[in-house]
Amino acid sequence: MNDLSALGRIRVVLSRTSHPGNIGAAARAMKTMGLSRLWLVSPASFPDPVAEARASGAGDVLANAQVVDSLQEALSGTVFAAALTARRRDLSLARRDPRAAAAELVQWSRNACGEVALVFGNEASGLSNEELGLCALPVTIPANPAYASLNLGAAVQLMCYELRLAAMGEGGSAFPAESLPEPATHDEIENFFAHLESSIVASGFLDPAKPRRLMPRLRRLFGRARLEKEEIAILRGILSSFDVSVKNGRQIQ
Amino acid sequence: MNDLSALGRIRVVLSRTSHPGNIGAAARAMKTMGLSRLWLVSPASFPDPVAEARASGAGDVLANAQVVDSLQEALSGTVFAAALTARRRDLSLARRDPRAAAAELVQWSRNACGEVALVFGNEASGLSNEELGLCALPVTIPANPAYASLNLGAAVQLMCYELRLAAMGEGGSAFPAESLPEPATHDEIENFFAHLESSIVASGFLDPAKPRRLMPRLRRLFGRARLEKEEIAILRGILSSFDVSVKNGRQIQ
Repeated sequence: MNDLSALGRIRVVLSRTSHPGNIGAAARAMKTMGLSRLWLVSPASFPDPVAEARASGAGDVLANAQVVDSLQEALSGTVFAAALTARRRDLSLARRDPRAAAAELVQWSRNACGEVALVFGNEASGLSNEELGLCALPVTIPANPAYASLNLGAAVQLMCYELRLAAMGEGGSAFPAESLPEPATHDEIENFFAHLESSIVASGFLDPAKPRRLMPRLRRLFGRARLEKEEIAILRGILSSFDVSVKNGRQIQ
Repeated sequence: MNDLSALGRIRVVLSRTSHPGNIGAAARAMKTMGLSRLWLVSPASFPDPVAEARASGAGDVLANAQVVDSLQEALSGTVFAAALTARRRDLSLARRDPRAAAAELVQWSRNACGEVALVFGNEASGLSNEELGLCALPVTIPANPAYASLNLGAAVQLMCYELRLAAMGEGGSAFPAESLPEPATHDEIENFFAHLESSIVASGFLDPAKPRRLMPRLRRLFGRARLEKEEIAILRGILSSFDVSVKNGRQIQ
């Protein structure tokens, strides 16, 4: 199912963010993936010119951000909340990785009669136990055990990317089909191989009496490339330019 | 297959980065996902205290970064390179999303006898056509068409996350590793393109004064094919057989 409207019902909630730059980075990350609903719980500084600068072209997301005093308020009106946490204790059973969590959030966003939320804690201390307790789904990003400290903006980018992929539907291509160049036809490809074979026989590279596995190998190589119509024209133009020289070379022998 | 050692053979290459903060953010993003090999092509400022600050606990990645003058140098010794690009023209067929590209990079990293590279361009201008031409695999992050401008550090985080998942075995390829033939190295491929160019200039097909987009198109074609070591030998053998004729043809003119 490719219905990106689900993204419009997902709140990104940043709780007690210390650095305004990270709020701007989060806004930019959200907008690149088609999310727009930013909630800020007791930010250290907001609005802030540093946030504006880091938001780049996502100033509208900042301008529309909701600022509240508690996570309770930010979750009011939602039907489901997931929370990022690096902690492992007490969460093993319910914990999801980003991909599974994104699928679940998008599903809730589509089926339920309210918004859903994805909650990120403070840069240094994360979410409090009380805050975690308000969220149904703990999410942990798989990371290097020796250094698992993702930047807040980078974590928001990664989660919003997974949300967009989930909303686009599994197995769906990320790219529209209409932009593909025109592929060569079977006949065009066969004519190219015939031309190639005749040219390298004429040049002396391929001995028809001892063909080894040369043409099958060349077929395999060009087969992997999935030749386009215009590429066939270029390749045959190159061969023709060699053919002329080969013919000239022959005449003096 | 859960073998994270593949991550240690993946270079993250940042070309002509303007903002040192993004270099620091990239280093941090890499380390959180278990990558460590950072290459910088002509950074505007490096080393830089802003990069150190943003790297947080990943100062070791910055300290070990290789600084070079060209993407050619950064790719020397690699066997496969993927490049991030938002551009859509001319790349539709080969283009991959991050997940598919990560699976391919990890597979190459496991099977090949050299390193692989993931290349990110300048914040504002991206990669030049020439730089893109050096990389076999264009990668596009699916994004909001109305605002697709990911922060560089966020893009590195997202790609390194997909690389870690791929190395952990999610989205791994169904093809057995042992069946892959030995890939050509970056240097072998560049030598082939130099030979091809010189041959078609000599044959008269390519006019150096009016190159049109001929070499970039040929790079794109053979890039999609992922040339193997033995195929390079065959192609250069073919070119040499033509070269002799072209030379003979010249002598009688």
